Amino acid sequence: MDETLKRRVLIEGVKPEIDCGRFPVKRVVGETVTVEADLFADGHDALSAVLLHRPEGEGDWAETPMEPLGNDRWRASFAVDRLGGFRYTVEGWIDRFGSWTRDLAKKVEAGQDVAVDLRIGAGLLRDAAGRAGRSDARVLRGLAAALEDDADPERRIALARDPETTALAGRWVDRSAATRYSRELAVVVDRERARFSTWYEMFPRSAAGGSKAGPARHGSFADVEARLDYVAGMGFDVLYLPPIHPIGRTHRKGRNNARKAARDDVGSPWAIGAAEGGHTAIHPDLGTLEDFRHLVEVARAKGIEIALDVAFQAAPDHPWVAQHPEWFRRRPDGTIQYAENPPKKYEDIVPFDFETESWRELWQALEDVFEFWIDQGVTIFRVDNPHTKPLRFWVWALGRLKQRHPETIFLSEAFTRPKVMYRLAKLGFTQSYNYFPWRNGKHELTEYFTELTRTEVAEYFRPNLWPNTPDILTEALQIGGRAAFVQRFVLAATLGASYGIYGPAFELMESTPRERGGEEYLDSEKYQLRSWDLERADSLRELIGRVNRIRRENPALQSDRDLVFHGVDNDQLLAYSKTARDPRGEVENAVLVVVNLDPHHRQSGSTALDLGALGIDPEGMDDRPFQVHDLLTDARYLWQGPRNYVELDPASVPAHVFRIRRRARTEEDFDYFL
Amino acid sequence: MDETLKRRVLIEGVKPEIDCGRFPVKRVVGETVTVEADLFADGHDALSAVLLHRPEGEGDWAETPMEPLGNDRWRASFAVDRLGGFRYTVEGWIDRFGSWTRDLAKKVEAGQDVAVDLRIGAGLLRDAAGRAGRSDARVLRGLAAALEDDADPERRIALARDPETTALAGRWVDRSAATRYSRELAVVVDRERARFSTWYEMFPRSAAGGSKAGPARHGSFADVEARLDYVAGMGFDVLYLPPIHPIGRTHRKGRNNARKAARDDVGSPWAIGAAEGGHTAIHPDLGTLEDFRHLVEVARAKGIEIALDVAFQAAPDHPWVAQHPEWFRRRPDGTIQYAENPPKKYEDIVPFDFETESWRELWQALEDVFEFWIDQGVTIFRVDNPHTKPLRFWVWALGRLKQRHPETIFLSEAFTRPKVMYRLAKLGFTQSYNYFPWRNGKHELTEYFTELTRTEVAEYFRPNLWPNTPDILTEALQIGGRAAFVQRFVLAATLGASYGIYGPAFELMESTPRERGGEEYLDSEKYQLRSWDLERADSLRELIGRVNRIRRENPALQSDRDLVFHGVDNDQLLAYSKTARDPRGEVENAVLVVVNLDPHHRQSGSTALDLGALGIDPEGMDDRPFQVHDLLTDARYLWQGPRNYVELDPASVPAHVFRIRRRARTEEDFDYFL
Repeated sequence: MDETLKRRVLIEGVKPEIDCGRFPVKRVVGETVTVEADLFADGHDALSAVLLHRPEGEGDWAETPMEPLGNDRWRASFAVDRLGGFRYTVEGWIDRFGSWTRDLAKKVEAGQDVAVDLRIGAGLLRDAAGRAGRSDARVLRGLAAALEDDADPERRIALARDPETTALAGRWVDRSAATRYSRELAVVVDRERARFSTWYEMFPRSAAGGSKAGPARHGSFADVEARLDYVAGMGFDVLYLPPIHPIGRTHRKGRNNARKAARDDVGSPWAIGAAEGGHTAIHPDLGTLEDFRHLVEVARAKGIEIALDVAFQAAPDHPWVAQHPEWFRRRPDGTIQYAENPPKKYEDIVPFDFETESWRELWQALEDVFEFWIDQGVTIFRVDNPHTKPLRFWVWALGRLKQRHPETIFLSEAFTRPKVMYRLAKLGFTQSYNYFPWRNGKHELTEYFTELTRTEVAEYFRPNLWPNTPDILTEALQIGGRAAFVQRFVLAATLGASYGIYGPAFELMESTPRERGGEEYLDSEKYQLRSWDLERADSLRELIGRVNRIRRENPALQSDRDLVFHGVDNDQLLAYSKTARDPRGEVENAVLVVVNLDPHHRQSGSTALDLGALGIDPEGMDDRPFQVHDLLTDARYLWQGPRNYVELDPASVPAHVFRIRRRARTEEDFDYFL
Repeated sequence: MDETLKRRVLIEGVKPEIDCGRFPVKRVVGETVTVEADLFADGHDALSAVLLHRPEGEGDWAETPMEPLGNDRWRASFAVDRLGGFRYTVEGWIDRFGSWTRDLAKKVEAGQDVAVDLRIGAGLLRDAAGRAGRSDARVLRGLAAALEDDADPERRIALARDPETTALAGRWVDRSAATRYSRELAVVVDRERARFSTWYEMFPRSAAGGSKAGPARHGSFADVEARLDYVAGMGFDVLYLPPIHPIGRTHRKGRNNARKAARDDVGSPWAIGAAEGGHTAIHPDLGTLEDFRHLVEVARAKGIEIALDVAFQAAPDHPWVAQHPEWFRRRPDGTIQYAENPPKKYEDIVPFDFETESWRELWQALEDVFEFWIDQGVTIFRVDNPHTKPLRFWVWALGRLKQRHPETIFLSEAFTRPKVMYRLAKLGFTQSYNYFPWRNGKHELTEYFTELTRTEVAEYFRPNLWPNTPDILTEALQIGGRAAFVQRFVLAATLGASYGIYGPAFELMESTPRERGGEEYLDSEKYQLRSWDLERADSLRELIGRVNRIRRENPALQSDRDLVFHGVDNDQLLAYSKTARDPRGEVENAVLVVVNLDPHHRQSGSTALDLGALGIDPEGMDDRPFQVHDLLTDARYLWQGPRNYVELDPASVPAHVFRIRRRARTEEDFDYFL
């Protein structure tokens, strides 16, 4: 029989806890972690509990007292104030002195004789004195003596119940039989951009400008630098470049994914590696490594981080194919095994054999690719198809990289099955692509974003919303015209604290697919240079800039935590809000978005607002009007109660982005009133 | 870098799993455990998975193949065919040959040349041959050669896709990189009575008979034997006796819980211990240990098990108080610390100090109490107030007892806070009292029993439903008259596979409380002898017997797994069903209960039946009438579809207990039809 059997407090139901503590929850610097747990013991004794927390690697726990919420549930919070990791757990114990004062009060109230009880209390105080420092011990012994000896019973009772007595006894409570929760749980703390980021993807080789007839020449990092003001002017803070490495020539794809490339075809940037080098080399037409570092610096000065694409696959002429044949599979006919997803073949790409006998060397070489680019100043990576590499490789590689470089952000490009997608987030990816591109209807948007933001998923999965990518020109964008672009853009930028667009295709509303029923772009930049008329009058550039400014000015839109959907009695109108709260939990900033999901027809309806969620009327008692200010059009409306009329015309602006003003001024706010 | 990094299959979301595998799930002999898990890997490879299971303590796992359910969910079942414990876990691996045949099929369908693919397949078969036994190896090598060499490509493809080839390759699949789920999960397997039991509680000291004026004398075990036919005749299979030990004289309580006992007052049986002995002694007026053993034997012959009450507390004159003063707390005035829940005092009872320095000896002595009575043939214990003893004591004691005596059943008497109640079940109690006595309305009954039977709770918590106990005369019974007794009885006996009544108070509809607003009986048997007129004409005895016969004849009522609530458009009518299914999942037996919850008024309404849940119309295609046979009244009705009229009068029988006849005979069943 073991001494731990004597620990009477039991702890269970700790939240947040992902998969029995196997995976950390995610936060950014400055956020808090609110922890709840069930704590209980046999019998009727009072309990005390603390939340223990410390930065990863530090020895001493900090303690925050937990508050009982009723039904044996307890809660406390702690702030994560630095990058890296934190740990937390819960400890609880029987509070003998607390039990005693509680029972004393009941007996006094029932008029019972408490003389013996006061002597019991004195004994508890003397026990505490035995554990206390010298001066507290003296005070505790004095209190104990007074509890037993003081002539006036009223005074003895008052002394026993004095909060200072309780506090002192609590300071020297006996925690030798305290129960510590069986697991230490982890938090990964990223920087703020992990939560709130605004991405722009562009092909640097198409940055050279040109005419509608075609590009002038292959773009370079210098051309990208020239494009930075355009990108910053729209309010983006991450500029993501598809792979910038030499492109394979063997089995190179032609325009529109033709099986054979023409002489001057540039090939797909994802067919990485050629005679000039592989994953740590730069395509000669883009510039030099020095040019790249210059771009990174200039961009940073304009508030933009350069994000690189990491695609762990090779063109057949990647130098590694000759240097490390053991990292690739061969077919029985001696040829190298190209990528395939039968019956589709990708002969311009060969996958690494992650299960090769030399897997240790391969894995290390791939980790080194990240290290190389981190050395060049890159802090954000978009990882191509992580779900086709062993998930344990990512656990290993991301774990090591985040330990050395906690500021690094990894965006997972996996449109795979839901459980694989979530597992990638759990195991270490900072942000994740997701199914937003294919969620168009009111019901499916509501259901999906409720799952992402109101369930445990929110603890580890940070969605990054892309209305388009070079691979995804959705049917909605193909057929919905300008209104569809605006709708999908407003949804992405306001449903998601992080979102991105692939431009200039997006702001110029490129909408022609290569083939009907497909999602590939016609004349896709994946296979050819393009030139874009950025000054086109119908560009969405200005709207994008306005929305990104709204995002910067409204903290509510910088987090996904407080997303709430509101009713509207029209299935084509979607209404939702986000809020930012002060440390006391009061709403400081509230944004209500209403989107007309129908790109063709004017839609109107009546809202059924959750006024509590908006911070207007948490008690359900306030029927004063409030002002809603449309930040897109600068129009202001006076609303009252949950039901208010909305009407949106896709021909003008198919969305409201309202900032809620808590209540409108009335005569009571006028100086002379009263 | 560790070899386990190479394991590409990941396993999560295993169900059932209670608190990260900390607690077992519960089954009875002959039941199955259906296990589900998420299994996935990177990429597109096909997976295989097995459920591993074995009796506790045996070395070798049995394997059952898991079936994919879609969305990476897999399922398999195993039967638990013996008392004690089982373990289970999940293992999965990449199925290379399966992936290959799947891809081959796609390529063949797309008309691609598969010559090289067939050579790859041949290589996989040769790999399998390397792992195979001699004769299988020969066959596999022959197949490999045929895949490469056979002149006819069609035949080679057919050979590759032959199920026998797949089966043979599967038999010798490479599982060296298989992933085993990180935890082994446990099942506690009880005997059937743990799931399906019918309890009758009575005070043996009131079994002597007598007149209305008062009891003839103190009852004895012989009187209980004489009462057995009465109990068996009503269909009970567990006879539960309150404590049968000597009763303390110090601070003995009088009739109706009077603080001072009169000279001839018998005291509360829960004030255990006196000069005659303690927890292993028998009250001299009840008989001898031999008499008790005789009672156990005679009862068993009539299909009744005797259940004893184990109350770990002592009267102040319990022999242990003198023999082991260190097992009790003293107050500063030298008196022993009596039980209290301030401001209430229970001076006839002293609690054990489970935290005494001598806790090891105390705990052992308490475990020995169980062993003593198990030696006398007792296999069922009702444990009094387990929540006022350290929960870890129960983990320790029940764990050891169940290991030695897996047939033993422990009923937890804890009407404490929900989480403590559930924890007691998790840690080892076989059955549990619960909040049924205070769930009266349609909404609260539906909600509570949905929680008990349709959530994870059902895996470890087996409710035992008591409409009354010696401590609980509910308000519903006090004010509802005979109808309330019948309603609460039918609810208990059909909502719960296990239920019990405290009689003869129940069947004789004793309904007068000691005081208004309380739940104590007037002239409670807890403090005095009573005599009961068992032959009273208005006794519920016959109804009880009928319902218990229905329970025995309808397997649907012998389990809580398949409880489903059905709609009725009247809030005073509650409708629910239970079903029993054959191994293929087809409904074999279905019982539909409709109860009028209003004890005063006739209520009628229209059902909204879930015909699928009743096994009548799982596909929603069958509109033929079906027969419902009221087993209480023997009336039969023809119903059709989900909507059917019901009307129940509390003045006659306030409930239907229908057995569903799958469909009524029509002309198509008549010989001459067709």
